[in-house]
Amino acid sequence: MMIEKSVSSIELSSIVIDDKFWGNYMELIRNHVIPYQWEALNDRIDGAEKSYCMQNFRRAAGLEEGKFNGCVFQDSDLYKWLEAVAYSLEMHPDGKLEELADGAIDLMEKAQQPDGYLDTLYIIGGLDKKFTNLMDNHELYCMGHMIEAAVAYYNATEKDKLLNIAKRFVQCGMDNIGREEGKIKGYPGHEVLELALVKLYDVTKDGRYIDFAEYLIDQRGKTPLYFKEEIKKNGNNFVWKDSYTQFQYYQAGIPVREQKAAEGHAVRAVYLYAGMADVAAKTNDETLLAACEELWENIVKKQMYVTGGIGSTEYGEAFTFDYDLPNDTIYAETCASIGLIFFAKRMFEITKDARYVHVMERALYNGVISGMSLDGKRFFYVNPLEVDPEACEKDHNKKHVKPERQKWFGCACCPPNVARLLSSIGNYAYEQDCNRLYINLFIGGHIKTELEGSPVDLKVKTEYPWNGQVRITHNLSSSYELAIRIPDWCDDYSLTIGGKDVKYELEKGYAVIRKDFSAGECIVLDMSLPTKLIAANPRVREDIGKIAVQRGPVVYCLEQVDNGPLLQSLYLDSKAEFEVKFEKDLLGGLMF
Amino acid sequence: MMIEKSVSSIELSSIVIDDKFWGNYMELIRNHVIPYQWEALNDRIDGAEKSYCMQNFRRAAGLEEGKFNGCVFQDSDLYKWLEAVAYSLEMHPDGKLEELADGAIDLMEKAQQPDGYLDTLYIIGGLDKKFTNLMDNHELYCMGHMIEAAVAYYNATEKDKLLNIAKRFVQCGMDNIGREEGKIKGYPGHEVLELALVKLYDVTKDGRYIDFAEYLIDQRGKTPLYFKEEIKKNGNNFVWKDSYTQFQYYQAGIPVREQKAAEGHAVRAVYLYAGMADVAAKTNDETLLAACEELWENIVKKQMYVTGGIGSTEYGEAFTFDYDLPNDTIYAETCASIGLIFFAKRMFEITKDARYVHVMERALYNGVISGMSLDGKRFFYVNPLEVDPEACEKDHNKKHVKPERQKWFGCACCPPNVARLLSSIGNYAYEQDCNRLYINLFIGGHIKTELEGSPVDLKVKTEYPWNGQVRITHNLSSSYELAIRIPDWCDDYSLTIGGKDVKYELEKGYAVIRKDFSAGECIVLDMSLPTKLIAANPRVREDIGKIAVQRGPVVYCLEQVDNGPLLQSLYLDSKAEFEVKFEKDLLGGLMF
Repeated sequence: MMIEKSVSSIELSSIVIDDKFWGNYMELIRNHVIPYQWEALNDRIDGAEKSYCMQNFRRAAGLEEGKFNGCVFQDSDLYKWLEAVAYSLEMHPDGKLEELADGAIDLMEKAQQPDGYLDTLYIIGGLDKKFTNLMDNHELYCMGHMIEAAVAYYNATEKDKLLNIAKRFVQCGMDNIGREEGKIKGYPGHEVLELALVKLYDVTKDGRYIDFAEYLIDQRGKTPLYFKEEIKKNGNNFVWKDSYTQFQYYQAGIPVREQKAAEGHAVRAVYLYAGMADVAAKTNDETLLAACEELWENIVKKQMYVTGGIGSTEYGEAFTFDYDLPNDTIYAETCASIGLIFFAKRMFEITKDARYVHVMERALYNGVISGMSLDGKRFFYVNPLEVDPEACEKDHNKKHVKPERQKWFGCACCPPNVARLLSSIGNYAYEQDCNRLYINLFIGGHIKTELEGSPVDLKVKTEYPWNGQVRITHNLSSSYELAIRIPDWCDDYSLTIGGKDVKYELEKGYAVIRKDFSAGECIVLDMSLPTKLIAANPRVREDIGKIAVQRGPVVYCLEQVDNGPLLQSLYLDSKAEFEVKFEKDLLGGLMF
Repeated sequence: MMIEKSVSSIELSSIVIDDKFWGNYMELIRNHVIPYQWEALNDRIDGAEKSYCMQNFRRAAGLEEGKFNGCVFQDSDLYKWLEAVAYSLEMHPDGKLEELADGAIDLMEKAQQPDGYLDTLYIIGGLDKKFTNLMDNHELYCMGHMIEAAVAYYNATEKDKLLNIAKRFVQCGMDNIGREEGKIKGYPGHEVLELALVKLYDVTKDGRYIDFAEYLIDQRGKTPLYFKEEIKKNGNNFVWKDSYTQFQYYQAGIPVREQKAAEGHAVRAVYLYAGMADVAAKTNDETLLAACEELWENIVKKQMYVTGGIGSTEYGEAFTFDYDLPNDTIYAETCASIGLIFFAKRMFEITKDARYVHVMERALYNGVISGMSLDGKRFFYVNPLEVDPEACEKDHNKKHVKPERQKWFGCACCPPNVARLLSSIGNYAYEQDCNRLYINLFIGGHIKTELEGSPVDLKVKTEYPWNGQVRITHNLSSSYELAIRIPDWCDDYSLTIGGKDVKYELEKGYAVIRKDFSAGECIVLDMSLPTKLIAANPRVREDIGKIAVQRGPVVYCLEQVDNGPLLQSLYLDSKAEFEVKFEKDLLGGLMF
């Protein structure tokens, strides 16, 4: 079998999101989260923990004296911010914002070393130690995020300064690390560089980036274990030596193709798997794709919460083992659900199978946006399914679980990650492949693209997820295949034009309409949204006797503020019927 | 109200335990656990972690060179052993065992300093530091256990060498610590000395011991907090500074009379409460007794498992908060249930109320003997209600939970604690008060005592807990009140003599028979033992939809070895009837 990956996102500049539900979030990202994060990166927020991020860059650039501060991965906060800025600029040009970004990029350029090296931790702290702790010091992780920002910024602005900075840093990485003799036989302790290198290839078409990504993936977990050697050679501390996961915390205990279950730090894991899928597609590597499929199945069938949350334990922010899904000591980091979405997108693009997108939708509506308050000011890093406020305070095992969203952290991974995902949500909603347009997520908007040279221009209107009707109107006559995802929760739907059933075929979870669409023609997908009760696999100890309530893609949450105390003593009559009512002023939400 | 404590145990030498269920355990303690522990204290067990206990004493005595090894409380292991030995000798004189014990006591005497000080940690490590870390270094804890051993050994053998060693050490403590000016205003970080001092008073009638115990209790938690001062003065590390419990880990955050809920390290807590009850009784301190009652109620109504286990979390081996009783991350240390039994015994002795003994019985049959295998070689320190073997290995929050009993630890608190409790079980089964004899636990045996000068001699025969019949035969004619506890689980019972109902009055949970008993007369208590389903208070989140199965005092455990995997998917039909069958070869147990 030849792995074919012809599916691709539509450029963000060709998509105008016009959606009540998502529009709010995107406005929030643009008007609040991105500016707020800039203030945070510059330590200008009263009462918030300091980031030190821009200060480190100034110090690395020699503009001021002083030591490095913050987390070892602090640089990546700027990169995630720049990536979110890029997506935002692509859809909403904003001269002032672009100027801020350009200034930051200039500062990066000043900090970059002659050999291309650019990590403020070591530039400030001592370059002699660079690349000596790939396991824990996140240089290659920062490199990955730098690339993602650079590619996005280049796509948005056509400016290549950041891209060139990133290319030089990657070159420096490739000069020092790789399969060739004399080079460090390492790979990142925190993955993301793998998928980033594929993005870099996509804009540069420089095959060395694919080679390097392939090396990083193949080398990972090979005997002798690089991290073990690094520990020995440099006397690095090995935090996980008493943990059963050992080097699988980093997904680096055995070769990736032999990894049958998702293990270790959840964000790292899904970032790796996404990169593996990317590399498999580029190199036509079937064993690597098979590994991705096996890991995917393991996650979604045995290690994922009903919310699309992953990572069952705070210890290592990690996967634990099959069917271990405690609701109260859960981790389910917002970033991990975002990473799962990255993985899902790539698996869909390779397989054109909606089952990956079903999970993407579940994670997006439940495991990701749960992470941010509706005013964009407070965040859940951990997204629990059961919270007892008293336990959060008094039970050491639950101290990571917060009953209310928190303010921005000093080293806050999740908010910028939410920002970059939501500002590029159009890339997840719509994709194209030859003569086919995929509608993966039901998000209102205006999409213009070309399919095999012919223009397609359509408008999507919907009040999803509260209402199951999606209206797709063509502004131009065009002949192509429209593939509309039918969600896995949907048992009852119709597809009509002008009230009449339209002909379609079901393919891998999509209703595919092959037709000459005429200008003005409106296709109406009407999904009924019954309230459903979902039970976990009985192997999940913690869910015996419990059910989740889901309507459309949304899993509902029962809160004490609405229902009084002792939530655990409430029970649902299995014969009871749900009543749905719309509360205009209550988060614009539908309550039952 | 005057607190009257006239109830007292019957001397062990006057009790012969002759009971199928408990006899086995006691034989095990005598023939296996006590000799095994002696080997352990002497580091003569292959493959076991070293204790270093006797080595430390030899080094402290100047018989060999070298540093202190083991836990800071290692001395107490010898004392617990000596206490168990004493109880054993009292019932079963054994010249060889007594010789071993005498040798150890001689060694202690050699190690004791001219001022009476005797803690090997500081004798070896530097006496200039003695009494500078009362918070964590367990000197006063060791002193407490030394006293308990000394009193038991004196009672058993009438030899006073150990008692004198203990008195000298206490004198040294009182010379250095106390309310008088110039003395250290401290108290033990790990309680037990309080109740031990009352035992010391009971054999010496020296009121200064009660004064000292009273001081320790009154001073505890007073502002300025002694432990805070100690940290400041000596630069001691404060492990719990990030915990919400803070100094309440030691029950020392506020004065004991203001403590409304059991908090902190569970063993320390119940040892303290037992000591508080003792001091309240001796000093007629009603506010202190009221505090004990409030703490007792808090524990048994809100913080105790159905097994009599206490301590909901491994973090600090501690109580957490009301109704927080997770089954799988539980701690429920064997020692904590033993401590609860100590507390219960004292509260019964003061109040003569069976409700304390009901809890004692629950803890004894379920939270204590669960801690030791039937061959006495393996131990549970943690007694969980739900165990998933895979989780014990892979879930950091459950790594303290063991699916099978473990071998002896290097610093093993629980096994010697089980040994000293079970070797003195007669003291818990039978108590007396003026003209009344209490039968608190149904344990077969032969009891001889005097009530107000008149001899009482009776034999108890029973197959409890498997059978609900208890036969009490008088060997002598005697006129007294026989108070037989009617367990809280028992709804249906009869009390007969020669098949005829006997007249009794119910008083505080006891059937009290006031009668001239004639020699040969046999009173038969017949309790029906239905299998009962017990549900937790619905405030206990983790027990929603779950029930416990109890028959008599025994809470049953469902195991994978008998029932196959996926225990969580089994359910009980609420209308189903239980069938009880006796499996002779299976632990001598009754199965349903």
